[in-house]
Amino acid sequence: MSAKGKKPILLIALGGNALIRSGQAGTIEEQFENLRVPIKQIARLSKDYRIIITHGNGPQVGNLLLQQENCDLVPKLPLEILVAQTEGQIGFMIESSLDEELMALGIDFQPLVSLITYVVVDKNDPAFKVPSKPIGPVFTEEEIKSLEYQVVKTAKGYRRVVASPKPVTIVEKREIKLLMENDFIVICCGGGGIPVVRQGRAFSGVDAVIDKDFASLCLAGEIGVDIFLIATDEDGVMINYGTDKQEKLESLTDSKTEDYIKQGQFPAGSMLPKVKACQEFVRMGGVKAVICSVDSICDALEDKAGTRFIA
Amino acid sequence: MSAKGKKPILLIALGGNALIRSGQAGTIEEQFENLRVPIKQIARLSKDYRIIITHGNGPQVGNLLLQQENCDLVPKLPLEILVAQTEGQIGFMIESSLDEELMALGIDFQPLVSLITYVVVDKNDPAFKVPSKPIGPVFTEEEIKSLEYQVVKTAKGYRRVVASPKPVTIVEKREIKLLMENDFIVICCGGGGIPVVRQGRAFSGVDAVIDKDFASLCLAGEIGVDIFLIATDEDGVMINYGTDKQEKLESLTDSKTEDYIKQGQFPAGSMLPKVKACQEFVRMGGVKAVICSVDSICDALEDKAGTRFIA
Repeated sequence: MSAKGKKPILLIALGGNALIRSGQAGTIEEQFENLRVPIKQIARLSKDYRIIITHGNGPQVGNLLLQQENCDLVPKLPLEILVAQTEGQIGFMIESSLDEELMALGIDFQPLVSLITYVVVDKNDPAFKVPSKPIGPVFTEEEIKSLEYQVVKTAKGYRRVVASPKPVTIVEKREIKLLMENDFIVICCGGGGIPVVRQGRAFSGVDAVIDKDFASLCLAGEIGVDIFLIATDEDGVMINYGTDKQEKLESLTDSKTEDYIKQGQFPAGSMLPKVKACQEFVRMGGVKAVICSVDSICDALEDKAGTRFIA
Repeated sequence: MSAKGKKPILLIALGGNALIRSGQAGTIEEQFENLRVPIKQIARLSKDYRIIITHGNGPQVGNLLLQQENCDLVPKLPLEILVAQTEGQIGFMIESSLDEELMALGIDFQPLVSLITYVVVDKNDPAFKVPSKPIGPVFTEEEIKSLEYQVVKTAKGYRRVVASPKPVTIVEKREIKLLMENDFIVICCGGGGIPVVRQGRAFSGVDAVIDKDFASLCLAGEIGVDIFLIATDEDGVMINYGTDKQEKLESLTDSKTEDYIKQGQFPAGSMLPKVKACQEFVRMGGVKAVICSVDSICDALEDKAGTRFIA
């Protein structure tokens, strides 16, 4: 898919744990420290790939929501505006960290931008009726008794859920394509992008958080990404997760993936969307799709770590 | 300064009132509605100019600060991260509004991006010792008695003040220059940019808000802007402001500007930095610098409104 003579395009989707690790409160120092791990690898990879970085925002957007609900001093902002705020926050953190690591490698100038990205969703998406995306802090069973909003039980505890409609199109796709042609590194689709519905020429924000893996997949299809990599807090895709038969998979064919999905091997709201996004990327004709830990991005690209999806 | 055959580069710095007008609480609906006024004009101007849009964030960053100070449920973020959040918020609002107005003009594709921008300041800047930048809501004399932070009396009432060091360099200047060469419209330097100090290869955020007019001037000098326009809530530069001898100036020479500054005609933290930025832009050899109201951007470019700075 890449233009003649150009380096292949690698999309790296960073999970929330690239910033806040399990058990951490998520101070800004912790977030910058955690980011070093993937960002050092991405700096090295920039020699061989044209790179797009996308990222999650679950803990950060949840914190902003919690904060504004507990303060009556200023006007409350709708959820999509909070998503926009997290794009500013995390975009800055990734960009400035990557600037430092590129300088550390002696790279004088590698064009690098962090873009505000907004994403069109369908106002009739059934997801609006069934909130499924966990955001914000983890609560105990005791704590949720006093909460006024919908929660879901995750592996780590209870978390608030909001609607997570499918992305239809990334509004800035043509700009991102132009930037790729000009060898920029682009940070975009933060938090899955700012969700909007389009009516004629008008965009309006909606109360939702788009899954960043599906937004990344949507972008990959729209601009022609060669390699699709999702970095998360697991070493790869597991079956029998959390049991003594737990097993990490080296690779996954399309039919095996279907089987495991039917068996309910992958939890919704965490591994399932990642697996589905990779499966779909390979179905679209993508060169390579990988799920790996944030510590092993370089190794996974050399097939030494993670789970690889094969046609 | 513009490359041969290219349209001139116009930098438009939007004041806080482009989003929140005097007396408004600043709901998101109000902010989008207010934005239409300058954005409709900017869409039209894109036919004749390559455009950079910068913007303020005083009310927005002040709201975020107030909000997090009144909520102990999530970790507090440093001021520069809140600035980054407002770049996300306002960048999205400007970009999506401009997208709509460009479509309304039948323009199929005009590359348009909103960039996270961070700006280096000097850690020894004396401004760190004398906070001067008003942010956040306006308080009455009664209300400030219970406040724990430093405030300043402005024309509208009392407001919190934070340090406002001078910008030294815009980190993304080379990227913005490349984007201009490729005819992008670029939204950047939001809220004056995210303030950082640099030590060797390391950037670290600082507790400050950079004046967006000075950040815009810094960028203008670094990339070669032709026309520098500051849109605000006044029709132009006034002398004897608020008295019965109040007078709007059609134009200002360098020596007249100096005289008026010495007379204390322009209030610090509002008109003074705008006047100084325009004066300096003309001194650097810029083609045109104008201060006008957000309603009269197009007119001001045709010398029918605002105050023009002349060499």
